[in-house]
Amino acid sequence: MKKHPEIHKILTTPICPFRVDPNQNIDQILKNMEHISFQGRNLARALDIWKQMLKGKVTIFLGLSGALIPAGFREIMVYLIKNRYIDCLVSTGANLFHDLHECLGYYHFKGDPLANDVELKDKGIDRIYDTFASEAEFRKTDDWVSDIFLFTLNQNKAYNTREFFYLMGKELSKVSKKDGILTSAYKAKVPIYCPAVADSSIGISIATYNRKFKKRFLFDVIADVNETAEIVLNSKATGVIYLGGGVPKNFIQQAQVTASFILEDAELGHKYAIQITTDAPYWGGLSGCTFKEALSWGKIHKKSMRVMIYSDATIAFPFLVTALAKGAKSLTKKRKPPQFKLDKERLGFKS
Amino acid sequence: MKKHPEIHKILTTPICPFRVDPNQNIDQILKNMEHISFQGRNLARALDIWKQMLKGKVTIFLGLSGALIPAGFREIMVYLIKNRYIDCLVSTGANLFHDLHECLGYYHFKGDPLANDVELKDKGIDRIYDTFASEAEFRKTDDWVSDIFLFTLNQNKAYNTREFFYLMGKELSKVSKKDGILTSAYKAKVPIYCPAVADSSIGISIATYNRKFKKRFLFDVIADVNETAEIVLNSKATGVIYLGGGVPKNFIQQAQVTASFILEDAELGHKYAIQITTDAPYWGGLSGCTFKEALSWGKIHKKSMRVMIYSDATIAFPFLVTALAKGAKSLTKKRKPPQFKLDKERLGFKS
Amino acid sequence: MKKHPEIHKILTTPICPFRVDPNQNIDQILKNMEHISFQGRNLARALDIWKQMLKGKVTIFLGLSGALIPAGFREIMVYLIKNRYIDCLVSTGANLFHDLHECLGYYHFKGDPLANDVELKDKGIDRIYDTFASEAEFRKTDDWVSDIFLFTLNQNKAYNTREFFYLMGKELSKVSKKDGILTSAYKAKVPIYCPAVADSSIGISIATYNRKFKKRFLFDVIADVNETAEIVLNSKATGVIYLGGGVPKNFIQQAQVTASFILEDAELGHKYAIQITTDAPYWGGLSGCTFKEALSWGKIHKKSMRVMIYSDATIAFPFLVTALAKGAKSLTKKRKPPQFKLDKERLGFKS
Amino acid sequence: MKKHPEIHKILTTPICPFRVDPNQNIDQILKNMEHISFQGRNLARALDIWKQMLKGKVTIFLGLSGALIPAGFREIMVYLIKNRYIDCLVSTGANLFHDLHECLGYYHFKGDPLANDVELKDKGIDRIYDTFASEAEFRKTDDWVSDIFLFTLNQNKAYNTREFFYLMGKELSKVSKKDGILTSAYKAKVPIYCPAVADSSIGISIATYNRKFKKRFLFDVIADVNETAEIVLNSKATGVIYLGGGVPKNFIQQAQVTASFILEDAELGHKYAIQITTDAPYWGGLSGCTFKEALSWGKIHKKSMRVMIYSDATIAFPFLVTALAKGAKSLTKKRKPPQFKLDKERLGFKS
Repeated sequence: MKKHPEIHKILTTPICPFRVDPNQNIDQILKNMEHISFQGRNLARALDIWKQMLKGKVTIFLGLSGALIPAGFREIMVYLIKNRYIDCLVSTGANLFHDLHECLGYYHFKGDPLANDVELKDKGIDRIYDTFASEAEFRKTDDWVSDIFLFTLNQNKAYNTREFFYLMGKELSKVSKKDGILTSAYKAKVPIYCPAVADSSIGISIATYNRKFKKRFLFDVIADVNETAEIVLNSKATGVIYLGGGVPKNFIQQAQVTASFILEDAELGHKYAIQITTDAPYWGGLSGCTFKEALSWGKIHKKSMRVMIYSDATIAFPFLVTALAKGAKSLTKKRKPPQFKLDKERLGFKS
Repeated sequence: MKKHPEIHKILTTPICPFRVDPNQNIDQILKNMEHISFQGRNLARALDIWKQMLKGKVTIFLGLSGALIPAGFREIMVYLIKNRYIDCLVSTGANLFHDLHECLGYYHFKGDPLANDVELKDKGIDRIYDTFASEAEFRKTDDWVSDIFLFTLNQNKAYNTREFFYLMGKELSKVSKKDGILTSAYKAKVPIYCPAVADSSIGISIATYNRKFKKRFLFDVIADVNETAEIVLNSKATGVIYLGGGVPKNFIQQAQVTASFILEDAELGHKYAIQITTDAPYWGGLSGCTFKEALSWGKIHKKSMRVMIYSDATIAFPFLVTALAKGAKSLTKKRKPPQFKLDKERLGFKS
Repeated sequence: MKKHPEIHKILTTPICPFRVDPNQNIDQILKNMEHISFQGRNLARALDIWKQMLKGKVTIFLGLSGALIPAGFREIMVYLIKNRYIDCLVSTGANLFHDLHECLGYYHFKGDPLANDVELKDKGIDRIYDTFASEAEFRKTDDWVSDIFLFTLNQNKAYNTREFFYLMGKELSKVSKKDGILTSAYKAKVPIYCPAVADSSIGISIATYNRKFKKRFLFDVIADVNETAEIVLNSKATGVIYLGGGVPKNFIQQAQVTASFILEDAELGHKYAIQITTDAPYWGGLSGCTFKEALSWGKIHKKSMRVMIYSDATIAFPFLVTALAKGAKSLTKKRKPPQFKLDKERLGFKS
Repeated sequence: MKKHPEIHKILTTPICPFRVDPNQNIDQILKNMEHISFQGRNLARALDIWKQMLKGKVTIFLGLSGALIPAGFREIMVYLIKNRYIDCLVSTGANLFHDLHECLGYYHFKGDPLANDVELKDKGIDRIYDTFASEAEFRKTDDWVSDIFLFTLNQNKAYNTREFFYLMGKELSKVSKKDGILTSAYKAKVPIYCPAVADSSIGISIATYNRKFKKRFLFDVIADVNETAEIVLNSKATGVIYLGGGVPKNFIQQAQVTASFILEDAELGHKYAIQITTDAPYWGGLSGCTFKEALSWGKIHKKSMRVMIYSDATIAFPFLVTALAKGAKSLTKKRKPPQFKLDKERLGFKS
């Protein structure tokens, strides 16, 4: 069998088997993984793409779904926010609730995924796979929201979720001895959006407040839509990092769509994109869809750098962020906050 | 090797291999699958659990996530709503948008998942895995929301999502020649909740409306939380059917938590539970968590009937619903709408 | 936004939402699923591809992996073999062992996947997810192989696995009151290959026989390789159906590679291909790789009809085969056995 | 809500959020991951279990499936074999073929998973997801097996796969300038078993040899079964590490079953068990089944340490092995080869 004359144009870069060297630091390990295959290679590419984002004047959105804060990701998020490896966070309500919970002095606990759940219920323990928490302590966190925090707010205003969590971070900073997402984002002026805020313990606590105190606290969830589009329009370029999919991914993706409506079909799209997911494209859902699919919608730019890593984030992300901290720390200096203030003339909101 | 004397207490029910009989109807096929193993058995159990729900005075919630309406599930949902196989729907905004789109006379199309997405973008085609749609037609549906429908609403009221989609179903009924989720739910008085409404094309359209017409349309998403808890409290028992996970699953699950806050820790929990999912429990997220885990939280009742089916809903659900229609049609008569009106004394809302 | 003038060339075939009709038979249900999306559509395409295989003079290989026989698939396999919906079976040893077990009069049982496995062990119960069996009964099946069946064989011959299981089917036919894979394949002259036969309870039983009776029973596993290539070369066209992946998939795929070695790089490749799998392509393994990838190897022909269905076979296959039985029964007449006799001149084996 | 008095007996160990410290070495990173949740915690537990295996007098089996050698794992395997982090390897034939290929001086290459596979075929390039190789070069490796290596063997002997690959390692050592699995296992006296050897390019090459040179090379695959059981019986304890599942996992698991037959139902079972897998338990197959399920069969000992890590090995394994090299190097000294010589009196083989 003869070799095709053009084969060398395609077979240009040999796989370089991963060499075990106990003295490699994590940055080097990941760089070496770029020359192997499958998801290891993709994880290594994510490190490179994130570094490219930091080098450019890129507004970096991070979408946070899954139960990652009870799983031990609070400090990672704090690190990313404080050191401005990210510029804007879109989260599920649950992750923000669990962050609040830890900052109020409570804990999540290691547990057995095969535990007897009826017994756990009887003892007031809530289970998140292999992680436990005290329901009684959760109620105290609920109470902090419904009986303390909400009374600090202007009762006649409909807040968008960015304003709401900014103020929560501010209040929490007064009492928390730990750094959390909310407090560090407050301090670093990193905006947090939570599009499905009602669908979480925070939503339940606000419902309790409305019911118990005969209030009607309202969110302006539509303002979030315009505001995130505004951030896109005020950015030279945008990049995205998704831990899981869900509402945070969709919401950050749709910010480009909304922005393109405002600019009348300008060619937009995120220019850098990383997703760590356990979902798959062939079920057709947004959580698992590829960035290639997103090109058709204009959510991702056709000239983007992009990678999907099929992995549990609790494996991939601690390595990725430590490698980033090792190899890209210098890139994070002098980053300004994203311009999320609404351009009122342009967007025409009532104040 | 001797048999243990108690083995017969455990090995009671032989697997009965599935016999191929071309004259079996779909109801019989599913019944026979109850005696095989793995997910086939689970799908058969789902049929049985759903029948049990219909026999009892059970309020049945359905959580709809994933891209199932563009995938061809509109008529299935209409059937379930019209014939009251379900009593309350919680959906992503996207599915309701795609339902609206089809009811306004547009279509989704069969496509190739390997298509060139940059070319699709250039031709104005949006891709959802193997399904295509025209971006220009989507914009017309957007315009119907922002330029027509929203003007039919009371401008000074913050609607909850149930009210909003009820009114959308009402308006749509005037112009649509097809039955959709929105129109059939309007007619059958089946409430629809959409907790993450801002995170969808409907959210984008409302954002356009606010921006373009200098309005400030507000949702009362917290009212949804109290209202769904109220439905739980007004029901003798509740059952759940989840297609996928995401916000719809979490929101229906949390209705039990909110209800237990109102009733001061009464023993609540959904009594019947079915989920068809492609997620897995060991990633720790809510979408993939087992109903067994939900026992610890009290979201599912310890004496519940429950089953998880690990499958794409586009395979499992058409079979399941057709079997249900064949074998359980008589069970759907005389079901009343769920009591979703707020008990204002109790819940203390301002009107 | 204007429509691109060529959009109608691409958006040609609307999704036709699945209508619930309790009077549809299973064949009609599947046909209607062809017009929806995602895996439902793929399952419907599988029905069509299988029918095309039956219409053509195609030798149909079925690769059987996973624990499908203990899961209740024995009768389905019997139906496919008897009625010649398939022409050649490649199986794991385990599935053939469990088939033998049922044909010797034993059963598998329904069980709880959450059972206490240490207690099961103490009671002599082996668990396969939600399926139980008696270890003592398994030992009786082991004994039938090691103490009875192996003594019926020519002690001085190295059998290939096709010969071995043909003779096992013959012996088993004398004692079994049930139809099984082995007996029906024996009767229908459908060859069975089991490339990893040592890796199963059958392998263990033969190891026992060799040890206990001081024998040295040898398999000629290489003959299987040449013989399956020969089947390919003697066929006008070949088609494949994979339930799961594993060795059966790889072995049937490689039959094309071996055949191309014999014919000196003729353009070969299976012309029809169906896989039902729960694996995914992005892990890089053969079990989950796409048929598109197989084009590069020449295992699948570039002009093939092919579909992957991401589903548990215990859901997808009973529906698919019943629909086939309903709609394609007439296509199975007059099919001859595959030509698996070795062309000794050509292949040059010693007898 | 009051706390249950016993809650502190269960909530004993708080989750300790992962702190980003760029100066942590990989061993420390993994140790810190033990205090988070989900698969990150499991990966950390795997490190601990492997260290425990090394500390005890444990014979460590590694099962290697998936396309890990073309993916860049050759050097990792060499490291594990040379330094005796493992004592016995069970592999697919494909991985051994790709090891041989690299040792003969050829390469695998980085490629695009979205490449046009018909074009690749035309240019003689075989694709393994994102990894390419030259078909013409593969043929040269095939030729080395069929035209060179096989002629070095005793033509009248039926080898078991351990003997075969030992001799291949020996021959390859004479020509290879690289270390590979085969050569390093030969040198370190680490036995390699390949139960499905016919199902691979090595099987194809032997089939070519038999056909082309009118030979009848025979494997004694049953001897592998008895020999691995013998290794178990000659070990104080055994441990297992599975990369993927498939035949290697099943074969190592069944070694305990065969051993228990020989010892008449002694309480056996592997005492340490690690699996890195992308499969799931609820499909019922052996590849994805839990070690808990394996307790019922006696394959895993009831007092074992065990962990499943749901991850692509190309992510998890480079980190795990580097951490092991960092923190457990001293534990690998003075380990003897496993006793795999057959006790001929006891097992009764003919020579």
